Amino acid sequence: MPDAVLALNAGSSSIKFALFEIAGTPQRIARGEIEGIGTAPHFVARNAEGTVIGERRWPDASVDHEALLGGLLEWVDAHLGGDTLIAVGHRVVHGGRDFTGPALLDDKVLQALDLLTPLAPLHQPHSLSPVRAIMAVRPGLPQVACFDTSFHHTLPAVATRFALPREYEAEGVRRYGFHGLSYEYIARTLRRTAPKLAAGRVIVAHLGNGASLCALHDGASVDTTMGFTALDGLMMGTRCGTIDPGVILYMLQQKQLPAAEIETLLYQRSGLLGVSGLSSDMRVLLESTSPEAREAVELFVFRIAREAAALAGSLGGLDGFVFTAGIGEHAAPIRAAVCTRLAWLGVAMDPGANNVDADRISTADSRVEVRVIPTDEEAMIVRHTLEML
Amino acid sequence: MPDAVLALNAGSSSIKFALFEIAGTPQRIARGEIEGIGTAPHFVARNAEGTVIGERRWPDASVDHEALLGGLLEWVDAHLGGDTLIAVGHRVVHGGRDFTGPALLDDKVLQALDLLTPLAPLHQPHSLSPVRAIMAVRPGLPQVACFDTSFHHTLPAVATRFALPREYEAEGVRRYGFHGLSYEYIARTLRRTAPKLAAGRVIVAHLGNGASLCALHDGASVDTTMGFTALDGLMMGTRCGTIDPGVILYMLQQKQLPAAEIETLLYQRSGLLGVSGLSSDMRVLLESTSPEAREAVELFVFRIAREAAALAGSLGGLDGFVFTAGIGEHAAPIRAAVCTRLAWLGVAMDPGANNVDADRISTADSRVEVRVIPTDEEAMIVRHTLEML
Repeated sequence: MPDAVLALNAGSSSIKFALFEIAGTPQRIARGEIEGIGTAPHFVARNAEGTVIGERRWPDASVDHEALLGGLLEWVDAHLGGDTLIAVGHRVVHGGRDFTGPALLDDKVLQALDLLTPLAPLHQPHSLSPVRAIMAVRPGLPQVACFDTSFHHTLPAVATRFALPREYEAEGVRRYGFHGLSYEYIARTLRRTAPKLAAGRVIVAHLGNGASLCALHDGASVDTTMGFTALDGLMMGTRCGTIDPGVILYMLQQKQLPAAEIETLLYQRSGLLGVSGLSSDMRVLLESTSPEAREAVELFVFRIAREAAALAGSLGGLDGFVFTAGIGEHAAPIRAAVCTRLAWLGVAMDPGANNVDADRISTADSRVEVRVIPTDEEAMIVRHTLEML
Repeated sequence: MPDAVLALNAGSSSIKFALFEIAGTPQRIARGEIEGIGTAPHFVARNAEGTVIGERRWPDASVDHEALLGGLLEWVDAHLGGDTLIAVGHRVVHGGRDFTGPALLDDKVLQALDLLTPLAPLHQPHSLSPVRAIMAVRPGLPQVACFDTSFHHTLPAVATRFALPREYEAEGVRRYGFHGLSYEYIARTLRRTAPKLAAGRVIVAHLGNGASLCALHDGASVDTTMGFTALDGLMMGTRCGTIDPGVILYMLQQKQLPAAEIETLLYQRSGLLGVSGLSSDMRVLLESTSPEAREAVELFVFRIAREAAALAGSLGGLDGFVFTAGIGEHAAPIRAAVCTRLAWLGVAMDPGANNVDADRISTADSRVEVRVIPTDEEAMIVRHTLEML
């Protein structure tokens, strides 16, 4: 009977999961989510075809993480039948400066990760709650933390630094970068499928509801657009990305907004939603005829192109460009608009290939090779978890 | 007897001035400063050779702007002898969205400029105090406002926008850009001395204590690194430049810093001073052997190169690069380091020419022509002032 590994990705009100069977290459056999945590918890699991194969509701909003994750593990055991769940891998937002790779979770590691909470107060506690819950209900089950920051440990020091007094750097205020599991997956895939390109200068555009770029040189991250937090860099679904710090001083001093309100404004009311006044969903905006929706899309593309140029600078030129994540994998008009703005760098797009989401969407004689590669952060978590056992 | 025009540049505790004789091309015949305003006001004027030709101290710290500027105008009259002061031109930080060029100052214009104070609370009032003082002591003397923002009125809308809810744009929170008088002076100089280059894609690097880049296409600004305020973009002497907005939320929520303290931190304790822990003066840092000084200089250069790449993206390529202002005109090692990082864009520097601050510091076959052009914002103010009379 083959073994299995569970990958978890916990947010503030939901925990996404994917179950992989380990027989040679790990195969995803189920995926799902516990949503409505804190209000009306609801568990649903689907098989590879998308058919619902498990569902459960908890009538009590106050049900704790131990009960929820205990319920999930019971379902996993039942679903696996004779197979054995050998480990759980977690996506953890922040690994700080010390966790430059995945870590087997124990009390000591958990304590170290707790100390990073001030760096990511909105996310780190949610990453760690399921770890503690599983430790309580399945004390012997190995758990592995896979960090969104680790892949960027190769950033040169100059790319990690803010122009702030040094005491801030000493307490951890530096550029970390995020989406590391996605970039690592893409880097490994590129190494396997296009080794020559992988050895060169490549920008990966992870364009989902969160969005960032990563500059890869021979597969290692040398620059990225997210910084200290996942708020920095590109315009996103509801996040502002890079913004003049003077705007925040204006909000504080001229508009007298409290910090919590500014946080909500920048994380949840800005980005595509804020500029369009309509939606954070790129599909909705691309179908809309409103000028504000068009302007939101234009700004999204402009900011990608501007940051891509900056990253090409950090790479000293460009050999390849990879689109990934929801928008990157599926929004042909966005890819086309970005490629047009990057023509000066040697990008020549093949519209036919782009329109069908082909693997390679640049023309045969494009100086920069442009690819579309579906990302798979859960598969990366499972690989890391197996490597740590 | 030739006429004369006075150019004023007022800050929080000082007013710089330059006096031009208008006989054909305006000639600077004196320059100086009233410093120590609010503490121990001290006026000094020098001729073109740097010799002190006028000096005055006020024993009373509370002496008002009318007395100070009255004193300055008395000195000007005495110094001009038979010449006539026909106008005063002012550098005004903020022209908002409506002042797309210089404006003859009257009560109505002053009121409109007062309304922009929330956009630049640290600077706008200081720009306007001398105007009011001169209106009081010399009611008939024409005064002209020359805005640091106006030159950027050609920015495409997409380059002016933040990814914030639209109501912020409606109240004026957008990217304006600054150092406009310097960029306009450089653009005009380039048009005169290198018309073919001026018609192309040029980045101007204004590197002084404040620092920014401007992307010129056929002489018009199409992108720039300063945004809503002069805090954005490049690393500066004491200013942080672009920074993850999450860092400010961290200062507010984790460190409980009041807004005023954050303002002081970002404007006065960051940049070269903050990272080096030593000085905001590039000359001091270039002579220092401390690792922190070296890292501060490295970050300064890295950020210029990264933003220059971004601006090359907005231009769709690069034909020329111009260094100006204190550091740009005099710091050969900084120019050399920037040029090295821009080699991938086609920049090839001539070290010999660079070391002597030559007009042109690129090699004969450099794809991008690199120039050093001394800026002269005061001359620009005088030209605008004459154009408005």
